[in-house]
Amino acid sequence: MKSKFIVIEGLEGAGKTTVRDKVVSELHAQGITDIVFTREPGGTPLAEALRQIVKEGIEGESITANAELLLLYAARVQLVETVIKPALARGAWVVGDRHDLSSQAYQGGGRGLDTAMMKTIKQSVLGDFAPDMTLYLDVTPEIGLSRARARGQLDRIEQESLAFFHRAHQRYKALAANDASILTIDATQPQQQVQQAVQTTVRRWLEEQQ
Amino acid sequence: MKSKFIVIEGLEGAGKTTVRDKVVSELHAQGITDIVFTREPGGTPLAEALRQIVKEGIEGESITANAELLLLYAARVQLVETVIKPALARGAWVVGDRHDLSSQAYQGGGRGLDTAMMKTIKQSVLGDFAPDMTLYLDVTPEIGLSRARARGQLDRIEQESLAFFHRAHQRYKALAANDASILTIDATQPQQQVQQAVQTTVRRWLEEQQ
Repeated sequence: MKSKFIVIEGLEGAGKTTVRDKVVSELHAQGITDIVFTREPGGTPLAEALRQIVKEGIEGESITANAELLLLYAARVQLVETVIKPALARGAWVVGDRHDLSSQAYQGGGRGLDTAMMKTIKQSVLGDFAPDMTLYLDVTPEIGLSRARARGQLDRIEQESLAFFHRAHQRYKALAANDASILTIDATQPQQQVQQAVQTTVRRWLEEQQ
Repeated sequence: MKSKFIVIEGLEGAGKTTVRDKVVSELHAQGITDIVFTREPGGTPLAEALRQIVKEGIEGESITANAELLLLYAARVQLVETVIKPALARGAWVVGDRHDLSSQAYQGGGRGLDTAMMKTIKQSVLGDFAPDMTLYLDVTPEIGLSRARARGQLDRIEQESLAFFHRAHQRYKALAANDASILTIDATQPQQQVQQAVQTTVRRWLEEQQ
């Protein structure tokens, strides 16, 4: 099977890390063991430096929504060009914690940036590059944020208003409904059922790729 | 007179700082004293952090041309939105050491990035915002770089190949030839003649703005 780029998406506290482990188990079960992990923003020295700026902010200044978007795309294009594409080219699979859909949900939905402008920038720098499959873990902001809070201190993005996360959530759902490569998992279910749903979904998807 | 955004552009070693002082003297002579200085990339805490990344690079990684471009636009949009536009709105003049033309010359000409892609990104985040006047100090790369070298250690950009600077130089000249808001000064002349040319050019331009 040709190597693939699988992305796990969802709001804070959706359970992305646990699901990633489950996805990897399913890949291993199929004999797929050369797997590169990425997280966004991040995954290269430059992108990690930008991740810190986006997550922690800059002393004495409020980052504008447009600047934030461009930082995220700078990190993303660096990751895609120097890590993801080379990994896929050598036959490795790539499993990503977040990718472009996060920008669509958070910057597009949450911050209300213009959809046409975002599409233009994405197309300009990434072209038609896209994940082969995205597992979108759907949770309400209330549930996700209460889980994130239980984990500890919240970063700059996690401290946004509940209304911000509701807009991001609506955007996630709307995009997932209109893109066949995005498979939605109900992540409000108990852990065991989420794992079962991920297993069923990933296995079915892998069969379709044969 | 309505406040204006004046930019000084040119290759390394073109003499931008000296010319800036002369421009300021001319503005002062006209009674214009509320002047905000900017430099790009930089001029805000975020933009200065990005300047350092672009100028010094990142340990263990080569920044891709696309990522570099997006970092420069992130810095620029932050500066435009939080410093330049507010300054102009309150009636201050803004004198900038570099602005968008540098990206057109260095990333477009020097690095050979696609012109249509660059235009799209610029338009997406800056719209029609542009300097009222740009003083382009024309020097050959050979002269400019020998002056820059005499100043001390060269940064990541200044260490680019001579061919890179020749491409940037050609792009600067081509863009200056096709944009009436870009006024070219022959900066290979002796210092005193450059100062004289700047004085004449700025005075004439200011008269036209009355």
